[in-house]
Amino acid sequence: MNNSITNVRNYNAAFIKVITMEKGSVVKIDYEMWVEGSEKLFDTTKEDAARNAGIHNPQIPYAPLTTIIGDGRLIKGFDSHLLAAEIGKDYEVAISAKDAYGAHDPSKVQTIPLIQFKKQNVKPHVDMQVNLGQTQGRISRITDSRAFVDCNHPLAGKSLRYRYTVVGEAKDPCKKAGWIMKANYPREVEFESEIDGKSVTIKVPEPCKYDVQMWPLAKYRAVGDLRNFGGFENVFFVEEYIMPQQPEKEVVAEGKKED
Amino acid sequence: MNNSITNVRNYNAAFIKVITMEKGSVVKIDYEMWVEGSEKLFDTTKEDAARNAGIHNPQIPYAPLTTIIGDGRLIKGFDSHLLAAEIGKDYEVAISAKDAYGAHDPSKVQTIPLIQFKKQNVKPHVDMQVNLGQTQGRISRITDSRAFVDCNHPLAGKSLRYRYTVVGEAKDPCKKAGWIMKANYPREVEFESEIDGKSVTIKVPEPCKYDVQMWPLAKYRAVGDLRNFGGFENVFFVEEYIMPQQPEKEVVAEGKKED
Repeated sequence: MNNSITNVRNYNAAFIKVITMEKGSVVKIDYEMWVEGSEKLFDTTKEDAARNAGIHNPQIPYAPLTTIIGDGRLIKGFDSHLLAAEIGKDYEVAISAKDAYGAHDPSKVQTIPLIQFKKQNVKPHVDMQVNLGQTQGRISRITDSRAFVDCNHPLAGKSLRYRYTVVGEAKDPCKKAGWIMKANYPREVEFESEIDGKSVTIKVPEPCKYDVQMWPLAKYRAVGDLRNFGGFENVFFVEEYIMPQQPEKEVVAEGKKED
Repeated sequence: MNNSITNVRNYNAAFIKVITMEKGSVVKIDYEMWVEGSEKLFDTTKEDAARNAGIHNPQIPYAPLTTIIGDGRLIKGFDSHLLAAEIGKDYEVAISAKDAYGAHDPSKVQTIPLIQFKKQNVKPHVDMQVNLGQTQGRISRITDSRAFVDCNHPLAGKSLRYRYTVVGEAKDPCKKAGWIMKANYPREVEFESEIDGKSVTIKVPEPCKYDVQMWPLAKYRAVGDLRNFGGFENVFFVEEYIMPQQPEKEVVAEGKKED
């Protein structure tokens, strides 16, 4: 797997100034991701690609990932590669486990006697999710008497391969504010914003008004990001409850006789 | 127990127009409440009264109750009595069970064999709260073999006596908006509001910003009440995140030598 980004930069360095990302760039990225050694697509932002690979999940809103570069919210290897990316170019990058989800830690594999499952009337199988009190894992192997439950990240110890394109960057402060919101909220909504000096007012989208699961934390984190990466000081969230307009009553026909 | 409000009204009716509440009046009420036949105070908005009666609970923010009259959010007997009340006057009213928490329904008393408690290593006692799956109740009696769990409201079947004063009414639309918010949110916070025509903008108090328990429902109900009783059409909630001001840096002494 060649690291095409490095090639491009070396080639151009002496001739033209390559405009690339910087820490805090707010971007949208389309990507496909494979585990090295497997030809099967593991994850993607593209609906068609997911469908073609037979991994399409109707629960997932397929759309470019809105994120902030260099902030540690992506795996290290992908994040640092993005810092040197140009908008609209296709890249392919191999990332070692160390720069992805870390090495596989054998001490995080526990063995559970099969009798434990039987007591709870559960039939264990490989890949089954198991709750072990404080932690969760998946069954990686079953012997005659025991199940091995692996509590590592499913991608721990794996080298990954990304094919990606930065499809857009938000430069305009208003757009940037909206995208920073999006980078913090996993559902597919658009955020409208208005700017007045160092203050930004975000209109709270309809689904967020009633979302007590993800919205409170997203809102909290977004304030920090709007300050750190958007250059704003004050943040206002506005929830609007506008009275629905009544349909106008029919005009009574003129000259109608009174009873 | 005489119904003093009736006396007052009959006496004055022929001479002066008595200004009383109406459906939708937004008021603050101080009250003390007893179960008829008991001299022990059961509930009150007054901290001193609670302390004197030995029922003071440090978890409760003692303050006049902000509520909306005639909207069915108070027990029927109290609500209808309030409709004829005058601000600042002291009233005392007896309310039959029918107009309070309803008759006691014997079919809502269940018996649980004591062996059930023993199995769960629980020692039952009178007044203990018991969770019965869908419903909750309290143990009202224990025999040699069984516990009687009463799932009626604790005040079902009881006549009540209220001594109360309407300590204030919000007439000004801005104050009314704030009090309507308060009537929907049980914690002791103040709501600032601004009015522009048929629209009201409520500043979300600090504790509400992080309250995912009570605020979402309070907000939702308040919109309805602001429309029904405040006369507003559009409601805006604004959450402010203002950048804390940095302390100004010390000015470097003039004439400092450069190294």
